Amino acid sequence: MKKAIFSTEISLLRSTMQRLLRRSAHTNITTILRKTHQADVALIMRSFNQYDQNIIFSLCPTALHKARLLEELDESLIEKVLFNESSKNISNIFRYLDTNDQATIIGMFHQNKQNEILKIIEADDKEEVEEIMSYPDDSAGSIMTKETFTLNQNTTVKESIKKLQSFPENDKIFYLYVIDNKDKLVGVISLRTLVTSKNSKKLKEIMIKNIQAATTDTDQEEVAKKVAQYNYLALPVVNKQNRFLGIVTIDDVVDIIREEASEDFLQMAGVGKDREILLKTPLKNAQSRAPWILASLVGGICAAAIINYFNGLLEQIIVLAAFIPVIIGIGGNVGTQSSTIVVRGLATGRVDFTNTIPLILKELIVGSLLGAAYGLLVGLASEYITGSNINNLGLVVGLSIFLSMTIAASVGASVPIILKKLNFDPAISTGPFVTTTIDIIGVALYFYIASAILIR
Amino acid sequence: MKKAIFSTEISLLRSTMQRLLRRSAHTNITTILRKTHQADVALIMRSFNQYDQNIIFSLCPTALHKARLLEELDESLIEKVLFNESSKNISNIFRYLDTNDQATIIGMFHQNKQNEILKIIEADDKEEVEEIMSYPDDSAGSIMTKETFTLNQNTTVKESIKKLQSFPENDKIFYLYVIDNKDKLVGVISLRTLVTSKNSKKLKEIMIKNIQAATTDTDQEEVAKKVAQYNYLALPVVNKQNRFLGIVTIDDVVDIIREEASEDFLQMAGVGKDREILLKTPLKNAQSRAPWILASLVGGICAAAIINYFNGLLEQIIVLAAFIPVIIGIGGNVGTQSSTIVVRGLATGRVDFTNTIPLILKELIVGSLLGAAYGLLVGLASEYITGSNINNLGLVVGLSIFLSMTIAASVGASVPIILKKLNFDPAISTGPFVTTTIDIIGVALYFYIASAILIR
Repeated sequence: MKKAIFSTEISLLRSTMQRLLRRSAHTNITTILRKTHQADVALIMRSFNQYDQNIIFSLCPTALHKARLLEELDESLIEKVLFNESSKNISNIFRYLDTNDQATIIGMFHQNKQNEILKIIEADDKEEVEEIMSYPDDSAGSIMTKETFTLNQNTTVKESIKKLQSFPENDKIFYLYVIDNKDKLVGVISLRTLVTSKNSKKLKEIMIKNIQAATTDTDQEEVAKKVAQYNYLALPVVNKQNRFLGIVTIDDVVDIIREEASEDFLQMAGVGKDREILLKTPLKNAQSRAPWILASLVGGICAAAIINYFNGLLEQIIVLAAFIPVIIGIGGNVGTQSSTIVVRGLATGRVDFTNTIPLILKELIVGSLLGAAYGLLVGLASEYITGSNINNLGLVVGLSIFLSMTIAASVGASVPIILKKLNFDPAISTGPFVTTTIDIIGVALYFYIASAILIR
Repeated sequence: MKKAIFSTEISLLRSTMQRLLRRSAHTNITTILRKTHQADVALIMRSFNQYDQNIIFSLCPTALHKARLLEELDESLIEKVLFNESSKNISNIFRYLDTNDQATIIGMFHQNKQNEILKIIEADDKEEVEEIMSYPDDSAGSIMTKETFTLNQNTTVKESIKKLQSFPENDKIFYLYVIDNKDKLVGVISLRTLVTSKNSKKLKEIMIKNIQAATTDTDQEEVAKKVAQYNYLALPVVNKQNRFLGIVTIDDVVDIIREEASEDFLQMAGVGKDREILLKTPLKNAQSRAPWILASLVGGICAAAIINYFNGLLEQIIVLAAFIPVIIGIGGNVGTQSSTIVVRGLATGRVDFTNTIPLILKELIVGSLLGAAYGLLVGLASEYITGSNINNLGLVVGLSIFLSMTIAASVGASVPIILKKLNFDPAISTGPFVTTTIDIIGVALYFYIASAILIR
């Protein structure tokens, strides 16, 4: 019920905005922007054209408002709405953004504009932004926030609480990180422990030691996995010398998990990994999908060559052609099931390298069980459908299905594991790759079995 | 680098535990359990047999320790390790669990044991547990925590801080929820605002009003979407009369997002929606996958009937059989791409009902672009591979690929949208369903075009 209300509100907002844009009622638009959560504005902006997107952005009442909107906008829109803004305006907006958002946005521009903006932003920020920009994409370093609360281990509880109260408003401060004289991370204290400890105690007496941390080059997916597994609210980021550099907070982890899941979905289906594919033109969309269809092309041509090779057999027993789709279809189906289970297991940590062999064996057994059942079914059905009087046709079809499903399940389970061992993303185009492999193996098996059994 | 260390630690822990279990070195096991994070113990328990799982659980030093381990364990393991525990022991462990974890666990037992445990747990908890158990699965009500911090709007800041300090240790208290005399939710205050406000002020003077809330029957996926979209740390849950009942916190949302993504992955591939499928026996595993393969079976048999119908044509031009795999394979590929993009778009809110027609049209265009390119390629290739001297074979193959890719993309994009409109989960078995549909359409198109062009 709530759900329905929620999407009605959004579509109401969208249609109101549309009407006001048509009438160029700029004052009214600003009024709406002032009252609406920026996340909702970002959502409806997706369905407007670039001209209207720029108008909406320019009508935001303040630089702070623009900053909040940028935090919510899709990356491809950020680039567009900022394209015409002067470096001066951009640096005004940047005053309200985390250094890590600043770094992400600056990274979208080409070198000249980057330098221009970097020259003009606040000196403190500049150093931090340049630091974050120096870390690899999707690493803990590139997504961490520098706006955190750290104190030296010799600070007293009383001083700490005072400092906390003068710290700029930020509801994402979950822990107080404790450092030594060399800025090394030595412990962590929850704000509750701080508030309930004796005023005279020093932080080093009440902190938790030996804490988990990520280094700047830890992959964001690993960071997310760790936060999810241990139910942390934030994970500190250190350099190789254990110097404290920043934190990754759980609300960023929520975004990472969604993004990584989306990427895995798209990659498995062979659509690349661009989460913003829906915002692309049809031509760009087709371009990013075309390469992954090559696998099907190659597989299909191999299959064609194999079938062509068995031309003579097919001429004698034309009805064999009828069962090509079911053999490769059903094999591809079970292979995709297996690879999906394994890809997801690898992503969530349920599958790791210590249990791969039993896993593949298990999939092989599952494949053979399914193959036995469906082989029997389709084998029997084949005798009826064609009404043909060829002896053993059912046996050929059933046996082919049994074998191709068995092989498909083990191939499906193995491919992502092998990809991962070779340090590729296990989701990369697993779908097309697995189905194509099964196409080739299935057709070859089928005709080989047919020629062995039917021709004496 | 960190990544490698991380998995080494886990496998080291696993092999140590294995050795100690073999030697029945129970004291040493308890020592390890005392020092290890329960999330890690839960992880390695997956790879032990049930006998060893029970030993590990029983060797946990305290009821508190067991409670923490239960919080991390997979559902199917929870049932097993608790199976032999007395209701008395279970109620001891329950003292350390959130009421919502208690409700989840009790829900796993059959009615008799449920009543037995409910009789014995603390009276306060009992009421809350029964309340939570009364809400539908995967609703906000069933996942909310009751352990929250609420105060009446007329409380002063000074009193509030005092109460906060005497509240049991809990680092997941992000906000203070404000209620009126009838327990209705009227506002929210961040702990920071509380700490930095004047002692004499009343909560109603400093709270934020008009806040977002879920009702008890809001689906957990909607809750997660809202928390992610607005960057909340928690979302309050109210009943239809706006009475405050509990909250869903962001760390639970992290789990929900992972679970829902896993379910969508499995469902799309037609593996059901059981996230714990990896822990099942091969037979159970095969059983839960078998029904989804039926689609392929039906599709395959339809395709066989169609091909059989064109028997006469095939007899004249045997080489047509060779291109069946590439036509259905390449169509299935592009159809899966489209449906994946749409399923994921629906899950993340990028696709909603206001933009479905343009979306399907766009996919149709993308399909025709890809179809034109690959139709040309395969059409040309077909003339070479077969070395056949049939006029227009390339035209037939190319045209079939063009049409089947165009149709596949639009069907692939439409299926999840139609499922969603019919109130089904858009991910449900979309993969097998789409590929099967394409199998049938592709084969029919191909032979129809062939008979139209090649036979005069």
